[in-house]
Amino acid sequence: MAYSTLGFGLIGAGVIGRLHAQHLASRVPSARLVGVSDPLADAARSCAESNSSMTYESHRALLADSGIHAVVIASPPDTHAGLIEDAAAAGKHIFCEKPIDCTLDKIDRAIATVDRAGVKLQIGFNRRFDANYKAVHDSVVSGKVGKPLIVHIISRDPKPATLSNTRSVGGLFLDMTIHDFDMARYVTQSEVESVHTIASTMLEGCGEPDTAIVTLRMANGALVSIDNGHTTFGYDQRIEVFGSTGMIATENEKPHSAHLTDSSGSHAVLPWHFFIERYAESYARELRAFVECIARDTEPLVTAVDGRRAVVVAVAAQRSYDESRPVSISEVE
Amino acid sequence: MAYSTLGFGLIGAGVIGRLHAQHLASRVPSARLVGVSDPLADAARSCAESNSSMTYESHRALLADSGIHAVVIASPPDTHAGLIEDAAAAGKHIFCEKPIDCTLDKIDRAIATVDRAGVKLQIGFNRRFDANYKAVHDSVVSGKVGKPLIVHIISRDPKPATLSNTRSVGGLFLDMTIHDFDMARYVTQSEVESVHTIASTMLEGCGEPDTAIVTLRMANGALVSIDNGHTTFGYDQRIEVFGSTGMIATENEKPHSAHLTDSSGSHAVLPWHFFIERYAESYARELRAFVECIARDTEPLVTAVDGRRAVVVAVAAQRSYDESRPVSISEVE
Amino acid sequence: MAYSTLGFGLIGAGVIGRLHAQHLASRVPSARLVGVSDPLADAARSCAESNSSMTYESHRALLADSGIHAVVIASPPDTHAGLIEDAAAAGKHIFCEKPIDCTLDKIDRAIATVDRAGVKLQIGFNRRFDANYKAVHDSVVSGKVGKPLIVHIISRDPKPATLSNTRSVGGLFLDMTIHDFDMARYVTQSEVESVHTIASTMLEGCGEPDTAIVTLRMANGALVSIDNGHTTFGYDQRIEVFGSTGMIATENEKPHSAHLTDSSGSHAVLPWHFFIERYAESYARELRAFVECIARDTEPLVTAVDGRRAVVVAVAAQRSYDESRPVSISEVE
Amino acid sequence: MAYSTLGFGLIGAGVIGRLHAQHLASRVPSARLVGVSDPLADAARSCAESNSSMTYESHRALLADSGIHAVVIASPPDTHAGLIEDAAAAGKHIFCEKPIDCTLDKIDRAIATVDRAGVKLQIGFNRRFDANYKAVHDSVVSGKVGKPLIVHIISRDPKPATLSNTRSVGGLFLDMTIHDFDMARYVTQSEVESVHTIASTMLEGCGEPDTAIVTLRMANGALVSIDNGHTTFGYDQRIEVFGSTGMIATENEKPHSAHLTDSSGSHAVLPWHFFIERYAESYARELRAFVECIARDTEPLVTAVDGRRAVVVAVAAQRSYDESRPVSISEVE
Repeated sequence: MAYSTLGFGLIGAGVIGRLHAQHLASRVPSARLVGVSDPLADAARSCAESNSSMTYESHRALLADSGIHAVVIASPPDTHAGLIEDAAAAGKHIFCEKPIDCTLDKIDRAIATVDRAGVKLQIGFNRRFDANYKAVHDSVVSGKVGKPLIVHIISRDPKPATLSNTRSVGGLFLDMTIHDFDMARYVTQSEVESVHTIASTMLEGCGEPDTAIVTLRMANGALVSIDNGHTTFGYDQRIEVFGSTGMIATENEKPHSAHLTDSSGSHAVLPWHFFIERYAESYARELRAFVECIARDTEPLVTAVDGRRAVVVAVAAQRSYDESRPVSISEVE
Repeated sequence: MAYSTLGFGLIGAGVIGRLHAQHLASRVPSARLVGVSDPLADAARSCAESNSSMTYESHRALLADSGIHAVVIASPPDTHAGLIEDAAAAGKHIFCEKPIDCTLDKIDRAIATVDRAGVKLQIGFNRRFDANYKAVHDSVVSGKVGKPLIVHIISRDPKPATLSNTRSVGGLFLDMTIHDFDMARYVTQSEVESVHTIASTMLEGCGEPDTAIVTLRMANGALVSIDNGHTTFGYDQRIEVFGSTGMIATENEKPHSAHLTDSSGSHAVLPWHFFIERYAESYARELRAFVECIARDTEPLVTAVDGRRAVVVAVAAQRSYDESRPVSISEVE
Repeated sequence: MAYSTLGFGLIGAGVIGRLHAQHLASRVPSARLVGVSDPLADAARSCAESNSSMTYESHRALLADSGIHAVVIASPPDTHAGLIEDAAAAGKHIFCEKPIDCTLDKIDRAIATVDRAGVKLQIGFNRRFDANYKAVHDSVVSGKVGKPLIVHIISRDPKPATLSNTRSVGGLFLDMTIHDFDMARYVTQSEVESVHTIASTMLEGCGEPDTAIVTLRMANGALVSIDNGHTTFGYDQRIEVFGSTGMIATENEKPHSAHLTDSSGSHAVLPWHFFIERYAESYARELRAFVECIARDTEPLVTAVDGRRAVVVAVAAQRSYDESRPVSISEVE
Repeated sequence: MAYSTLGFGLIGAGVIGRLHAQHLASRVPSARLVGVSDPLADAARSCAESNSSMTYESHRALLADSGIHAVVIASPPDTHAGLIEDAAAAGKHIFCEKPIDCTLDKIDRAIATVDRAGVKLQIGFNRRFDANYKAVHDSVVSGKVGKPLIVHIISRDPKPATLSNTRSVGGLFLDMTIHDFDMARYVTQSEVESVHTIASTMLEGCGEPDTAIVTLRMANGALVSIDNGHTTFGYDQRIEVFGSTGMIATENEKPHSAHLTDSSGSHAVLPWHFFIERYAESYARELRAFVECIARDTEPLVTAVDGRRAVVVAVAAQRSYDESRPVSISEVE
């Protein structure tokens, strides 16, 4: 690689964008944050200032800066594919938040552009980089549980303070369950064959399902169930893989382990509240891995194909819900 | 009640029958075991001798004994309904192992006979009497988790030493999952509306599914997933109820809590191996409750209707598996 | 052995005596309870009736019954040695509650009588028969933690409802810590060399220490700390052995494992409240072991010497407290 | 405060010094690392380069730099007091690693100089800033366990690869247990009155004790036991406070929570290996708190007096070991 440190541009300075900015500024060796763009100029400026970097008037201006070698796309989901195309055309390596986009034709065009440009594209399935999920994955891959038979994924967000926070990004399956679809593929090392969804609505005024069990049948015979919902007790993020010779499971991570026993029982503290606290480490690790795959010219751990396949499953899960029947992945592809 | 202790006859002296015999002989106040019948005369004799009781040549001879006020039916599942009819006709109260029987018409005839006779009939869903499941049920009923939204039931047997042990009793759903169907109804306090099954075969040579995820949609909107399979690590028996304001979950019970930490990690002992060890206490409690409902002339905690409904769900689960589609309970009823 | 079942007499029908009576009546194969004596005639009668046995006017009448082959002594501690002498003189095998007695000269006379009579004498250190402590002991003995270096024993009773319950039996060290002194010897497989006590008084109006840390130096170099006190949360009974290659520890046993998570945290149930609930199983096992050592003419697992040594350590612990200095066991012997 | 960011000099570039350098360079807002001094020029240079800062020829040169407002002293323990005097004389605020020094007269002189200079002095008892210990402290202070009665502190290092690593810094009590002496004072909010030590030597060739139980009697009546030793399973760092109305306890922190169950049992991963991994967060937090106490001109959370008192207890613990008797703090003061 010609450059000693990799110059990054950030496109989108919302919650997750600001987290990536901080990591690029101080926690990713060989990377530096050059500048930020966001249609909301104030958001861009505030994020840039906090991390000693520049502001661009638009993502096009950012992409035109030759000091920027790679971008992090953290804009709304349905803008991802277009931005990927622009960034690839500008010869920038791309780290793009999940989902890769919301419709398959846009995604396919974006992937084709990336392939032609020969740049790296890594999708933000950060949980693959979390210590718990990595330990589960590694144990399964190394045969510690035998053949994976049943996977149970629990993935529940804290209940939002206001309803408007919930449904801005393509519905439950594209926004929330998409992480779990990727995780199912990651830990079973297999592809989804069919999907069945049952769901309900718990949050008042929410016109769409917010609580669901999605079951998957994988090509290698593994069966998967995914629980989604919204809790009053913080971020509920667990996985269990039951295999032919053993089982591996994780527990929610907590801020500390102190537990109080008094005359009413034993009491422990709540899990970390949400993704910023719970997954901070994994967000830093995914960017370090991205920088490393550029430096070594290797394939990202989470590829464009991984990004696309999770969207395919999300589309199938939605269709299963809408039509109350199991949906084969081949119907959607 | 006219009698100071209740005389019991045991019909069927297999594994579970012998357990009930021991409990009747020493762990159920106000009950005594009068005698045992089993088509296998040796089994009947051995069981009777171990518990200081008599042997009968047939269940008819047993039912003819006026010193017997109640029977425990622990014969093969497809003989249950017939025996219930005979016992009810003889005016005996009836505790019958699960499933109540395998086909709905036989079950309905048996229930009608019981109703006419005015005797008690309790079905052997012993898990309702286990401290873990009772604590979960009681917490849900008292509102500790709010409205139940998602229930996850894990119910896995230890892998059988020989295949012949597995599939003698009506298939996975009628034999094993039937406990879970009852548990789903018990903890949600609602009825099953529809069932969807995905399943696979792990045990070599087993022509039927032995590993499954069954999902249920309950009338009150709760969603349920049930995991079944066969382990290398003993009896895997857990439940988790996620509700609108909280969650309650259990862990596997173990013979002791000692855990060793050495240079390779921290190590704890396996769960109890199977139902005899794990659920001993609940089997004693269900008989005590049965004796009490006779003494007080109250309804059993597990009724004939509970027994029948679990069979209906099992039939629907099998059909869902056979036809690869969700099955509405109304199709089976 | 000439008799097919061993006839037992119970001397002392208090809380622990009644528990032994129940176990002899139904949970100890090859044993039966013949009768009960207690200076409180009502206590004797009530206990006898509940367990279908006889009442004797005095322990001497009980010992005169040739149908009684063995006795359980569950009277106040300072009557133990005298009763042991009487029972041994009558040729009865003896199971005696802890402590064996309160003063060494009485204990020595009693042991001498037992030796002359050639009867068995087992002391009621029931915790050796508990699954948790047995697992720790067995792991240490089989070398799983290497050489034992530091043992930590936590042994706290629930706070008594009224103060009068606390101090009837020879003070904290002879009544409560004595179990821990035996446990220290049992798990380290070594003898106590010196004792140091620090203690305080928490229960109002209690003129003696009720809260203590006692440290022991064992002959094999192992160091032991024992925590005693009175809780608001039930019976606190744990042990941890740290050795040169590993560590083994136990947790408090609870009535069930269900844990609730709500917006205020995660909540589990209290431990079992006291010895009757917590150690029921171990009390049955120690009697079964006693019957077996008579049947096979082997040495009891807990000998008279074990009983005496624990008293020696208790005396040293009290002296250490009184004189604020470490006390060598050789000073007391 | 006149300066917008606080310039730091680091004196001593060993393991812990390098950790502080990293934190000053990137994890302590309002602080920057100006430069490093170490008698080993290579160590100073390497540390300075990794953190984009300067090297000084000596600590005197460092102290002469007016761009340096505060120092971190991370040199060998017996040099601390002298360096504190020099730094205070130069008007620098001081963060000094534990122990504050090894002898009380040197410590007293250093504290007098600091008082005259009016600079801040904070001692490196980082565990006060750890989430586990802070939660325990806060719970005790807010009355959650009532009056603290018994404290149990487990503090064991991983077994060193070579013996020479163990005993370079004043013996077990001044090097290792000193953290625990501070913790006992911190969680009980009381002073040590007397100390009793029992100890042994496990590491071959180590002429001094490396395994110990130290018991403390606090002025408020609380009793404390401290377990020290060296493990084969990583850093063993736990605390339990038993009080008149409840108990609070922590568990070892681990890299992840995944646990595997197979036919041999349930297996979890080892705790974090040592202080760098386990306490990273607390080391950053103590420096942030130090910067804040300078900025706000408040008293440090860990004062010079705290540093001195822990040394006093360590001296008493050593004397207790040497003379096999409890030692009153008043003997040492």
